[in-house]
Amino acid sequence: MIATRPTAGQDVRTVLDIGGRKIGGEHFAIIAGPCAVESREQLLETARSVGRGGAALLRGGAFKPRTSPHAFQGLGREGLELLGEAKAQTGLPVVTEVLDARDVGHVLEVADVLQIGARNMHNTSLLSEAGASGRPILLKRGLSSTLDELLLAAEYVLREGNEAVILCERGIRTFETAYRFTLDLAAVPILKERTHLPVIVDPSHAAGRRELVEPLSLAAAAIGADGLLVEVHPEPDQAVCDGRQSLRAADFAAYAERVQAAAALAGKTIDDDRLRAAA
Amino acid sequence: MIATRPTAGQDVRTVLDIGGRKIGGEHFAIIAGPCAVESREQLLETARSVGRGGAALLRGGAFKPRTSPHAFQGLGREGLELLGEAKAQTGLPVVTEVLDARDVGHVLEVADVLQIGARNMHNTSLLSEAGASGRPILLKRGLSSTLDELLLAAEYVLREGNEAVILCERGIRTFETAYRFTLDLAAVPILKERTHLPVIVDPSHAAGRRELVEPLSLAAAAIGADGLLVEVHPEPDQAVCDGRQSLRAADFAAYAERVQAAAALAGKTIDDDRLRAAA
Amino acid sequence: MIATRPTAGQDVRTVLDIGGRKIGGEHFAIIAGPCAVESREQLLETARSVGRGGAALLRGGAFKPRTSPHAFQGLGREGLELLGEAKAQTGLPVVTEVLDARDVGHVLEVADVLQIGARNMHNTSLLSEAGASGRPILLKRGLSSTLDELLLAAEYVLREGNEAVILCERGIRTFETAYRFTLDLAAVPILKERTHLPVIVDPSHAAGRRELVEPLSLAAAAIGADGLLVEVHPEPDQAVCDGRQSLRAADFAAYAERVQAAAALAGKTIDDDRLRAAA
Amino acid sequence: MIATRPTAGQDVRTVLDIGGRKIGGEHFAIIAGPCAVESREQLLETARSVGRGGAALLRGGAFKPRTSPHAFQGLGREGLELLGEAKAQTGLPVVTEVLDARDVGHVLEVADVLQIGARNMHNTSLLSEAGASGRPILLKRGLSSTLDELLLAAEYVLREGNEAVILCERGIRTFETAYRFTLDLAAVPILKERTHLPVIVDPSHAAGRRELVEPLSLAAAAIGADGLLVEVHPEPDQAVCDGRQSLRAADFAAYAERVQAAAALAGKTIDDDRLRAAA
Repeated sequence: MIATRPTAGQDVRTVLDIGGRKIGGEHFAIIAGPCAVESREQLLETARSVGRGGAALLRGGAFKPRTSPHAFQGLGREGLELLGEAKAQTGLPVVTEVLDARDVGHVLEVADVLQIGARNMHNTSLLSEAGASGRPILLKRGLSSTLDELLLAAEYVLREGNEAVILCERGIRTFETAYRFTLDLAAVPILKERTHLPVIVDPSHAAGRRELVEPLSLAAAAIGADGLLVEVHPEPDQAVCDGRQSLRAADFAAYAERVQAAAALAGKTIDDDRLRAAA
Repeated sequence: MIATRPTAGQDVRTVLDIGGRKIGGEHFAIIAGPCAVESREQLLETARSVGRGGAALLRGGAFKPRTSPHAFQGLGREGLELLGEAKAQTGLPVVTEVLDARDVGHVLEVADVLQIGARNMHNTSLLSEAGASGRPILLKRGLSSTLDELLLAAEYVLREGNEAVILCERGIRTFETAYRFTLDLAAVPILKERTHLPVIVDPSHAAGRRELVEPLSLAAAAIGADGLLVEVHPEPDQAVCDGRQSLRAADFAAYAERVQAAAALAGKTIDDDRLRAAA
Repeated sequence: MIATRPTAGQDVRTVLDIGGRKIGGEHFAIIAGPCAVESREQLLETARSVGRGGAALLRGGAFKPRTSPHAFQGLGREGLELLGEAKAQTGLPVVTEVLDARDVGHVLEVADVLQIGARNMHNTSLLSEAGASGRPILLKRGLSSTLDELLLAAEYVLREGNEAVILCERGIRTFETAYRFTLDLAAVPILKERTHLPVIVDPSHAAGRRELVEPLSLAAAAIGADGLLVEVHPEPDQAVCDGRQSLRAADFAAYAERVQAAAALAGKTIDDDRLRAAA
Repeated sequence: MIATRPTAGQDVRTVLDIGGRKIGGEHFAIIAGPCAVESREQLLETARSVGRGGAALLRGGAFKPRTSPHAFQGLGREGLELLGEAKAQTGLPVVTEVLDARDVGHVLEVADVLQIGARNMHNTSLLSEAGASGRPILLKRGLSSTLDELLLAAEYVLREGNEAVILCERGIRTFETAYRFTLDLAAVPILKERTHLPVIVDPSHAAGRRELVEPLSLAAAAIGADGLLVEVHPEPDQAVCDGRQSLRAADFAAYAERVQAAAALAGKTIDDDRLRAAA
């Protein structure tokens, strides 16, 4: 399997450079932003806040995978344009999800990283199409996928000649109802044994509510994750989706400082002057 | 939600007529055939056996969703042509899986029913595209999807104006390792409470081995399923995929007779003269 | 392992004779009664109804395992005395649960079968103490126990020289919330491959509501179970516990007739003249 | 519910003093030792190593709950005597498991904390008997128990007037097979919201192998646990049970230093002069 082969030599970890922001190896990256792009104001305000606070990349959904067809499906191409504008203003590279192989071309116009969501981890034609673009891929683990299945899904990207894959643990489905998904943090050291690819954690979807996001983030950093994918909103109570689990933009900088301290335990640094100083 | 609205009056169940074969209400249908179309000989021999044995429809995969990109991915369009030939020879309507929204057009040339697999249950663009074709859809429950999520996935088809959806329970992922998936037969009566759509069961993938397929089929028929989706192969030991769980074509007729007896318990009949006589 | 060794010859199935009522092999037995013994009137009325309807044994809990210490814990020894009275009046052998190794002696005064509940499947000192009594044991699968672990728990009884063990599938814990537990009917054929012991199914706890109990019972009988353990109450709406999932005593006889028809599919008969006639 | 009531005032956390060692509030305690007491030499060597390394309490099993009756069941009372000797030599208070309500008296002769294992979380008579002793109880979460069920199990102890309960997350059963159990670290902040009781984590059983124990320990400390329960053995390769997941005694002190750094992130300190200096 390509994913489990070191890129060069033994124990060499893949470090990705995305518009000057590094992830992997000793580089810890926080990818932050709103669940869904809702408006210019909402997106730009969030982008500025997370940029100032030490985020490496901006996340934001233009195409939203929703369980119900009656729920908000995202702003689509208008959302992509707003992401482009936020990138131009803040210099933050953009991560956004692609749901349909036919949209890959449009998404490539703005996205620095293509996200494949948990519900599409087994969508092999999407994996291949996104992989063939050569653009870095952020691949989320399926709700009930084993770690081996996640690596095999990554393999659909890698065999297109694209080795820039970031794996993302985001919680698995279990019987417990005290939160949305069970965050499986053991996935981090196990994936790092089996592959050279960067491994990040999304604490927001597993938590389902804001109070749990920071504790889970600290644990993820302490266990050796290469980064976090976290939802941030200027006014979570007004959010169209996932407001309950979004960090407040105003709290992001303090959150990032505490995350940096936990990442330092695992020998990793956020590439940000202010945070480096704090560490 | 459209899926949970009766089509007319109360307690009216949707009965689909697919090329003269009925499913739903009092009509119990067995959809049988190989996991994957491998060759003309393999497909035609299976089609003749299951047709003679009382199957209502022929199943067979031309596009195969595989966990690993290194595994056999199906014969593709050549497989579709062979399915067309089998339909012409036996008169059996064809069910086959579509994996990619861009393939819907090609699959429509031969398929009487479009199958959306468990790993694509959340692939909303595929659901919408397939739904918009107007062709009946066989929708499998995701590996860790709740029954409400299955109904919401069906809703993506129904809102395209296509109410010809067959729901399929195929086993969920649990901790037990004595078989491949835990067949959740309580799903049948619960789905029938919540929707007017036909509900069938795929015992083959849950079982993972032939010995369990018939017991699970009898239980599914006794609990009130409207049909079965079952893998049959002329020489299971030679099968490219899922041979271990395929029924032998030579055993199909006797199997269908026993299934018919169990379906009769739930007030259902297989529309086949020979089997009706046996019942 | 003793549990997986045939008692004599190959393919010999253990048939237990409990006060003249047989279970195992071709003998299908329904064990019916209230979740908890509540009062003389409630128990006797239920016992008479299920006895007339074809139940082989009477079930009823005197010691109740409750998740909360603030919930009703059963009538204790007074409940045992009422069970003794019901046995004397109806001739039905009694199955009742024992929760504490120190209570085994008292329970033996009335119980023809000692039940070990799902939450005590791993209570090895209770298994050994109950096993050493020589009395038949009804052993329920734990909420998240594999089938191999169930057989190893049975082994704690068998190594006391007591081979009269009835295994009971009662639903496992999964992510689905449409019912209380996922009834794992594939457990029946798999346990029958691995052991000579009788295997029964408890549909009531998995269902969590009355409407699902009969469909699950028919499926269990069709798949080859040797019997059912089912909750019955004269007035379910007044029940102290589990009323929502109890069959009405007045409906039991008709239920048993339909179960008998399903058991007949698997080559089994309820040893009751009236039901035999109905079959 | 008693467990969810603050002991005094609001936001007051229970701090237990066990033979001079504190756990809860700002006090982080490592409870370390072998899975099973095997011999005087093995136990004393381990006790000295973990004591010197900063462990607060010594753990060791005299009565072992085993899935198979054919596996080693522990040294029983001889094991208890050896634990007493280790306590006398090292001054470390002792945590040991009790499996049977009838053994509580014997175990009390040496144990400073009575452990109730995951498989006995629902053994209500054991919970009550152990609780009534007044001795602190270490209560492990069941393999498939919800957090609310864990709190209800604790309630069986608390209603005996014993509020000295330590809750322990030890991994839940899921579909993933890359480790033994899925360590549910979100349980820590959630339990701390719902109760004033100390919450610790057992990383050893979830991990199933040594390499994962330290990463999981760091994550547990960073997320705010009040302590760890960890398996340590002088020669893991020779261990009678769980050797694969035991830390080497020689590595314990370095491990404890790294854990201390992670606990400091969450505002907690190991009460040990050497470790305090290292922090």
